Amino acid sequence: MDPRPKAVVLLSGGVDSATAAALTARDGVALYALTFAYGQRHAAEIEAARRVARALGVAGHEVLTIDLRAFGGSALTADIDVPKDRTPAAMGADIPVTYVPARNTIFLAFALAWAEVLDAGDLVIGVNVLDSSGYPDCRPEFIEAFERLAALATSAGVTGRRRVRVRTPLISLTKAEIIRAGMAAGVDYSLTLSCYDPAPDGAACGRCDACALRRKGFVEAGVPDPTRYRAG
Amino acid sequence: MDPRPKAVVLLSGGVDSATAAALTARDGVALYALTFAYGQRHAAEIEAARRVARALGVAGHEVLTIDLRAFGGSALTADIDVPKDRTPAAMGADIPVTYVPARNTIFLAFALAWAEVLDAGDLVIGVNVLDSSGYPDCRPEFIEAFERLAALATSAGVTGRRRVRVRTPLISLTKAEIIRAGMAAGVDYSLTLSCYDPAPDGAACGRCDACALRRKGFVEAGVPDPTRYRAG
Repeated sequence: MDPRPKAVVLLSGGVDSATAAALTARDGVALYALTFAYGQRHAAEIEAARRVARALGVAGHEVLTIDLRAFGGSALTADIDVPKDRTPAAMGADIPVTYVPARNTIFLAFALAWAEVLDAGDLVIGVNVLDSSGYPDCRPEFIEAFERLAALATSAGVTGRRRVRVRTPLISLTKAEIIRAGMAAGVDYSLTLSCYDPAPDGAACGRCDACALRRKGFVEAGVPDPTRYRAG
Repeated sequence: MDPRPKAVVLLSGGVDSATAAALTARDGVALYALTFAYGQRHAAEIEAARRVARALGVAGHEVLTIDLRAFGGSALTADIDVPKDRTPAAMGADIPVTYVPARNTIFLAFALAWAEVLDAGDLVIGVNVLDSSGYPDCRPEFIEAFERLAALATSAGVTGRRRVRVRTPLISLTKAEIIRAGMAAGVDYSLTLSCYDPAPDGAACGRCDACALRRKGFVEAGVPDPTRYRAG
């Protein structure tokens, strides 16, 4: 029996979730990684999650397919063009079209289910202030509301055996600070993928909001960017 | 354009969700029914949901497949025997083995996503006091916590455009009261299926907890039970 406490970590294959996972592992926690295939146009993201999970030495990794496309309404799941070459001001001005309705609510709900079966005390999610500017379900008040819900939602909550906590180790960090913290924890960012619109071979576009934030983060962190960008 | 307000209703094909949907439709609300295929051992339940949705004249019906089996831990999704011939006291004594971890959290999270895309103001769920005795995520305090979460989880919540409400028209009703209310609203219960362990032809076992509660409900309501039970 592994004596370590357990955490279910939402792992997308991007910079943030890989870093949140690595920082949690460093605390001596056994990681159970949970990745969603949710009608993304790029399976490359799933492959990145598998690489990252392997590098982290997770105790378990589940990839769940859920079909958010049935509901429509987002560039990440439907056939809307991913916006390119936007300024930071334009990115922050409103809720991005790449927003997936209730995404983190759905993801955390599944994580909660797995945590209950595993008897894991923590859920880990890589939300942070940068994301919070546009995505409602990345804000601290959302996370706190989910913790309150979790306490009432599960048999563990009812019996008082344990309350599930949602760890957000990146919540107050900038992208540059996340990258520096991840480097210190040994994250190999060449395994990660942030791009909303990667090439078939997995190369990042370099121009979508996610690529722009990632590039800026590496520059500001003063760390070489190991990302493979598409030529041209 | 349909001028009616919209609601996303969780529709399992059983007595409770069919009744909750019918009571909501009677208020002049356009129903968008959401059914989950979640590794149940009986596809008959999905077929019942389709029949009920058709009879209700819903504006839309989505059946989402989600694989809760990946996590294990319940008789409804794994290979554990469904308990039979239990007394009411035994049923109420603890959390049933048919409990699916975080099920209503997951179901309501998907309903919230669809509601946001549809701009629907209400979610409808057929939870009630009988269920509450064993299932943590059927209690009023859980529903209230989900409403608080929903207000923070979606772009509608952030812009203040609208708050999503969770309707629980059955919350304080007994099974007999539910059946009487449903009969008054025109529900055809012969279309519904409650059994946890139906025969391949869709006949109910008559002996699992769900069958026992249903049978007792019809007797107490003083209404003939239209259920087709397995012979022997």
